[in-house]
Amino acid sequence: MQQDAIIISRAGGPEVLVPARCDIPQPAADEVVVKVAWAGVNRHDCGQRSRGPNEHESDIPGLEVSGTVHAVGPLARGLEVGMQVCALVNGGGYAEYVATHWQQVLPVPAGLTLQQAACLPEAAFTTWYNFFSLAALQVGESVLIHGATSGVGVFAVQLLSALGHPVYATSGSAEKCALALSLGARRAFNYKTEPFAQLLQEAGTPVDVILDMSGGRHMEQNLAALAYGGRILHLSSGAAPVSLSLRAVMQKEARVTGAMMRPLPAAKKALVAQALKKVVWPLVGSRIQTRVHQTYPLAQASQAHRDMEQGDHSGKLLLQVGAA
Amino acid sequence: MQQDAIIISRAGGPEVLVPARCDIPQPAADEVVVKVAWAGVNRHDCGQRSRGPNEHESDIPGLEVSGTVHAVGPLARGLEVGMQVCALVNGGGYAEYVATHWQQVLPVPAGLTLQQAACLPEAAFTTWYNFFSLAALQVGESVLIHGATSGVGVFAVQLLSALGHPVYATSGSAEKCALALSLGARRAFNYKTEPFAQLLQEAGTPVDVILDMSGGRHMEQNLAALAYGGRILHLSSGAAPVSLSLRAVMQKEARVTGAMMRPLPAAKKALVAQALKKVVWPLVGSRIQTRVHQTYPLAQASQAHRDMEQGDHSGKLLLQVGAA
Repeated sequence: MQQDAIIISRAGGPEVLVPARCDIPQPAADEVVVKVAWAGVNRHDCGQRSRGPNEHESDIPGLEVSGTVHAVGPLARGLEVGMQVCALVNGGGYAEYVATHWQQVLPVPAGLTLQQAACLPEAAFTTWYNFFSLAALQVGESVLIHGATSGVGVFAVQLLSALGHPVYATSGSAEKCALALSLGARRAFNYKTEPFAQLLQEAGTPVDVILDMSGGRHMEQNLAALAYGGRILHLSSGAAPVSLSLRAVMQKEARVTGAMMRPLPAAKKALVAQALKKVVWPLVGSRIQTRVHQTYPLAQASQAHRDMEQGDHSGKLLLQVGAA
Repeated sequence: MQQDAIIISRAGGPEVLVPARCDIPQPAADEVVVKVAWAGVNRHDCGQRSRGPNEHESDIPGLEVSGTVHAVGPLARGLEVGMQVCALVNGGGYAEYVATHWQQVLPVPAGLTLQQAACLPEAAFTTWYNFFSLAALQVGESVLIHGATSGVGVFAVQLLSALGHPVYATSGSAEKCALALSLGARRAFNYKTEPFAQLLQEAGTPVDVILDMSGGRHMEQNLAALAYGGRILHLSSGAAPVSLSLRAVMQKEARVTGAMMRPLPAAKKALVAQALKKVVWPLVGSRIQTRVHQTYPLAQASQAHRDMEQGDHSGKLLLQVGAA
């Protein structure tokens, strides 16, 4: 049986994303196959596309989907054909069907549509893993979230505010800063015009944990804004190394780190999924609202990548695959 | 009452260390005054001397001493006048008398001379705090120690070997590498001639925690040698920022960090001191040997700084202050 998918035909710009016919995946023993309704577009997908096909990853991009369970491997627990779910997938999301480890499949939170649920997996796994596993965020610690209106940013600002952490945010325009404030941030800074580290210092509010998706552009200001014992979490990196003051690191006992969700061992992802189900899913729909910026038919994945790289969005870009 | 001391007269080379007469300190309520027998010389002292006097630090350098308890503040517990001790001090070690928080004072380990005990405080506090607090070293994790024949290095190689961790080491000469092996390192690399990261990778032995006192010179090789989830601990920094690949950090979920012992809150130092007394002091004299490279009269502190900066030593440089 074959399906429609979008593949990365070669390294390049958005135009290298092309439609293709390929086999519908069969579930491995510990996998579930999801019939995709919506697929999330992430900046990671653009990076993978620019670098081109490689032997370690599916040629089909896409790290998160929502849809219905289509087939269930014998080791999967609690999942039945026909259930509405959302899932983190290890590539392969831009397609009608995708296989993923059963422990990365989560129910659609109560009251949400499949379209809304497709906004959650990558943002929720990334936010939870970075703040609560990698940074071991403690009760009352404050956070600074750069790119507060990105897919991850929108989710992280709301979740951490809901959990009682003082949240500070940066964004690239006054409109986006206003959005960050409406999502729960105490203060939002336009990083293009405001010296956020100096302003945080003047306000006497150093931050304990910083989530940075700027590829290191803010390193010096991050270290200046950081509290003693603070952590800086990098979600993205440019090609070139960045400049780091070890003296500033040592003076604050700062920890500079970062993670990639995709290569994370399945066991760690499973632990994150359990925490999401217990702590986060009950907040979704009330304290945490999803925010879709734009949707595209699957065949227009190239346009979605163009818009992602343009960076004018605030909220998720979604591909409509099999939804009504 | 006055005493002899060495002070930093201005910013500069070893010659700016000059003898001076100054008041014998009185103990604050939570302090003990030690009559100094031996004072350890540390690279930190050279940095402080180069930068010159400042309002936050004593003009008398010196971070560790051994000697006898001379006076005891009313809040100090378990310390009596006349006891032989060694202590971490917040500056002021190059003098006949020095005051320090009572919880940073430790007994002289059984069987050791005062000269040997003066080798311990800075190395023991630094090693324990970095590996077991900052890096949270776990059972069985491996370590790489750069500068394995420095004061801290000699101690760290022996302690971590004694506690069962696979220890790898680097040093700047074949003789120093041989010393590192004799102290318990599994392999020792001459960092001037051997590509240690490549050799560790070829041997299939990535390292979990790296202790680096090179000021960032080994950053790229450190990241290459590191295991997934590994930590890099910086003990020293140059004036200039270093170059860091965020991509390498993220791929390995590396944590780049570092600490300064001196500004560490007293409560943290007290916790380290308790661990040292329980776990480390019983090993000193058997599994952990002190190693004195050279001793100098207090008045020749300048020469000790010259030798420290020359870097040809392997083991401690000590100033003889009041010892027989």
